[in-house]
Amino acid sequence: MSDVLAALDKVLDARKNAAPDTSYVSSLYHKGLNKILEKIGEEATETIIAAKDAEQSQDNSDLIYETADLWFHTLVMLHQRGENSQAVLSELARRFDLSGLEEKANRSK
Amino acid sequence: MSDVLAALDKVLDARKNAAPDTSYVSSLYHKGLNKILEKIGEEATETIIAAKDAEQSQDNSDLIYETADLWFHTLVMLHQRGENSQAVLSELARRFDLSGLEEKANRSK
Amino acid sequence: MSDVLAALDKVLDARKNAAPDTSYVSSLYHKGLNKILEKIGEEATETIIAAKDAEQSQDNSDLIYETADLWFHTLVMLHQRGENSQAVLSELARRFDLSGLEEKANRSK
Amino acid sequence: MSDVLAALDKVLDARKNAAPDTSYVSSLYHKGLNKILEKIGEEATETIIAAKDAEQSQDNSDLIYETADLWFHTLVMLHQRGENSQAVLSELARRFDLSGLEEKANRSK
Repeated sequence: MSDVLAALDKVLDARKNAAPDTSYVSSLYHKGLNKILEKIGEEATETIIAAKDAEQSQDNSDLIYETADLWFHTLVMLHQRGENSQAVLSELARRFDLSGLEEKANRSK
Repeated sequence: MSDVLAALDKVLDARKNAAPDTSYVSSLYHKGLNKILEKIGEEATETIIAAKDAEQSQDNSDLIYETADLWFHTLVMLHQRGENSQAVLSELARRFDLSGLEEKANRSK
Repeated sequence: MSDVLAALDKVLDARKNAAPDTSYVSSLYHKGLNKILEKIGEEATETIIAAKDAEQSQDNSDLIYETADLWFHTLVMLHQRGENSQAVLSELARRFDLSGLEEKANRSK
Repeated sequence: MSDVLAALDKVLDARKNAAPDTSYVSSLYHKGLNKILEKIGEEATETIIAAKDAEQSQDNSDLIYETADLWFHTLVMLHQRGENSQAVLSELARRFDLSGLEEKANRSK
């Protein structure tokens, strides 16, 4: 599993130079940042609804699907801004190694 | 970078059995799913605002920070539901290997 | 302007008994609560993006349009749940008359 | 009920010139647009969660409360941008009188 995000980064980079009508991702890049952010808002909402439904049904499959959609669209956003998944992983690692998760515990709960 | 999410999964698992006041994550688990979902909505909003600000400032640092916060809280949600990061990576890999990204291109754009 | 919401309530009530293909609202009722909530998430996101763009352009027209879309879809949700705009106005009036806005000032800022 | 929004507009206008520590609204204006937009994202999320809970409990009271919170914070945003509730009501009336609701039915469903 460890290379999935790196592999996805390569796909997302490759599609930046493709014509808008060649793929969903190329179409999103072409439509620009606002459209990508709208998708993130949509997918976050669908994730929240799926989590509430999973709480009732005890079936997590939709929740996993929607969370993957949410991560995917945040990756499209990062690539549109010239970043990739490694920037997010580095930030998470920084918090983890430097007891960053504990630091968050001191924020207002 | 490839082990960051697996390492984070271990931390999030370990905190499920800890007392609520021992960490931010333990506190969130204790407050329950609704509170975790509220945080996901907050972090998605902060990510969108940070992306709009990055578009103006050409500085992506806040955007990466907020995206890490968003991913982190989706991971807390997944663990609260008995899942982990590997489920999301498997779903992304499935789409990638099975040309799933192309399949999305056929959805309504 | 004072009767706009009451008039809209009447329209939204009338469409609850109409066939799904007779209007956008009837179609939404038929699709159910999750679809209505997805629209609320979308419109909230579009409102936030429009506000950031208005901050740059100093043109509020899209922001007003998106806010109207957001209110409209919350009204569809309320009607789907057997409520209407008057319930929201009563709640706002209650807070206003009973110094509720001040009360909010005492919440964590 | 018809004057609630007009009365709320007056309150929100009056607080624009007040010191930040005199009320919750004055504090929000002082913190600026991003903070107001974060609140809108939070309240939209809480509305969606409350709707899912109302679907289970058949009790709409939290849903009405959260929707009022959402409308309230969109009004603070509009006032921060020099607008008020009448702009939203005018837009809704325009759609209503000009068969705008029908027009929406022709959008992609």
